Amino acid sequence: MSTTGLPFDDIRDLIARMPGPDDAAVGAAREREAQLTKPAGSLGRLEELSQWLAAWQGGVPHVDRPLVAVFAGNHGVTAKGVSPFPPEVTAQMVENFAAGGAAINQICAAYDLGLKVYDLALELPTGDITEEPAMDERTCAGTMAFGMEVLMDSPDLLCIGEMGIGNTTIAAAIFAALFGGEGAAWAGAGTGLDAEGLSRKAAVIDQALATHKDHLDDPLEVLRRLGGREVAAMAGAILGARHQRVPVIVDGFVATAAAAILHALDKRALDHCLFGHVSAEQGHLRALEAMGKVPLLALGMRLGEGTGAALAAGIVRAAARCHRDMATFAQAAVSNRDPM
Amino acid sequence: MSTTGLPFDDIRDLIARMPGPDDAAVGAAREREAQLTKPAGSLGRLEELSQWLAAWQGGVPHVDRPLVAVFAGNHGVTAKGVSPFPPEVTAQMVENFAAGGAAINQICAAYDLGLKVYDLALELPTGDITEEPAMDERTCAGTMAFGMEVLMDSPDLLCIGEMGIGNTTIAAAIFAALFGGEGAAWAGAGTGLDAEGLSRKAAVIDQALATHKDHLDDPLEVLRRLGGREVAAMAGAILGARHQRVPVIVDGFVATAAAAILHALDKRALDHCLFGHVSAEQGHLRALEAMGKVPLLALGMRLGEGTGAALAAGIVRAAARCHRDMATFAQAAVSNRDPM
Repeated sequence: MSTTGLPFDDIRDLIARMPGPDDAAVGAAREREAQLTKPAGSLGRLEELSQWLAAWQGGVPHVDRPLVAVFAGNHGVTAKGVSPFPPEVTAQMVENFAAGGAAINQICAAYDLGLKVYDLALELPTGDITEEPAMDERTCAGTMAFGMEVLMDSPDLLCIGEMGIGNTTIAAAIFAALFGGEGAAWAGAGTGLDAEGLSRKAAVIDQALATHKDHLDDPLEVLRRLGGREVAAMAGAILGARHQRVPVIVDGFVATAAAAILHALDKRALDHCLFGHVSAEQGHLRALEAMGKVPLLALGMRLGEGTGAALAAGIVRAAARCHRDMATFAQAAVSNRDPM
Repeated sequence: MSTTGLPFDDIRDLIARMPGPDDAAVGAAREREAQLTKPAGSLGRLEELSQWLAAWQGGVPHVDRPLVAVFAGNHGVTAKGVSPFPPEVTAQMVENFAAGGAAINQICAAYDLGLKVYDLALELPTGDITEEPAMDERTCAGTMAFGMEVLMDSPDLLCIGEMGIGNTTIAAAIFAALFGGEGAAWAGAGTGLDAEGLSRKAAVIDQALATHKDHLDDPLEVLRRLGGREVAAMAGAILGARHQRVPVIVDGFVATAAAAILHALDKRALDHCLFGHVSAEQGHLRALEAMGKVPLLALGMRLGEGTGAALAAGIVRAAARCHRDMATFAQAAVSNRDPM
């Protein structure tokens, strides 16, 4: 384990220097919205999405280079029997992503979204969180920095997703550490645990919380001790996107755990994030509510891979297109309710 | 008014002869779903959508030729001041659709959906429902038959939407006639009525209900007396699609009123329909609940034009693509939880 403390200082510095929304761009978007050929407010949440894009892109909302980034990691805690699938499945699914056979491939193809998959040292599972920290500080901060590199592709909308057998246990432990409650309150069926498996999973989370109980006041320590490589990378990607003025769509239960770390560091850290959907995984809605976030979709999904975020990206793209390409009342010679 | 009674008999005959779901196709879809590289059930409602497509297309689910059909009509009841927009806006918006300037144009472009707009004798508004039936029987049945012609383009998924200044009043009157309750219970703000306008709209609906009160037991009489041309055409399109094995996505408040007529004729008449979203228009959710229908999206929209149905079509297409193109556990050499 690192003892320098320096890497996390760099992360804290990035949190402190986060840019805010572009109020002028929001004002311009609102002004245009009022002139488009539809009753005021009739596109509902689509209008909010356009203004959200404007706020965080800092200009006219656009979705021209959307990217889905999927981070994959392996977890030592799988030795405790927290998943019905063996840990080899993480690497097998990464192969499946590369071959175009997974659900996220089809959704990206259907919506014309870019897709990049990052496997994070799958041959080196993180420490078993019931016994030791998942990562040392250097690994954790370095993986966050790696996650930021997703911005190198210059997306204008970034969807964050993950793959990792065992990582709903990781996410549940993080939520318990950040929001309180025992393992049973946050453990869900994941890929399909039965009642006995669920009970074992809850006990594993409680054990992890007990092991690290004296070190959970600092959200970055929560990430390092209870997290995983894909969780750290997602947190880094979300933070990096903020600095690059790229709005983010967060996927489900595990991606939200990564986001929650940033939220615990600074309540404004997720203002550039949309939560794409609410997962069927127990605890996701509660975690969103704890942060005051309202998901866009509710489709009973619990797959991960960025699938819920990618579906939401389709809606966001449609919103941007309406905002940019609709005719104004004047252009279309349509009578407004208050003719000028 | 027609006195022959024959045209409605033809409609009743089509209702009586509706085909049912293809259970074998549903079984095959379920079997394939279980082999795809994801935890069982993890795509949630997307899996249900694939099975719904299979049931009503009668085979492997596909969305290759999706079509959004928008029907536009004008209403004599606009003379009673039920909309803040003048009735000329209906024709102006049809022009806007043709020029590609409306919201539905952008959503269709974003999702690669076909779009056809049918203007239904806009120069001949239907009768003012507070004083007389909207249509005679021949016009109503003939307009339903016209709506069925949308199937000539052989879509494999049909989205139903509308445009018509005054038609939320029409739809509210239909809901009141079918489900009970006074005008105030079903009248919403529509394109943006203030409190005074809303009160006037509720009174107009009550007046229409009183005028026709002795003739509202037959749903087709409800359609003829309280409906409009676009409502009749949508009902016809939904019924025609059933016979052509084309699943339908119904848009919002007004399109749902058309669907509700069919539902009142036969509770199974909407089994091939998905309700794309729940509108912000007061009463839509209640109408859906009265029919036991659960909308796919909840985005606070209240525009019509098929916009909510078109957004839902994007999700349905992604579902079909996941079902068709995902790799199986065997194909991808991914370990399933129960290796065979």
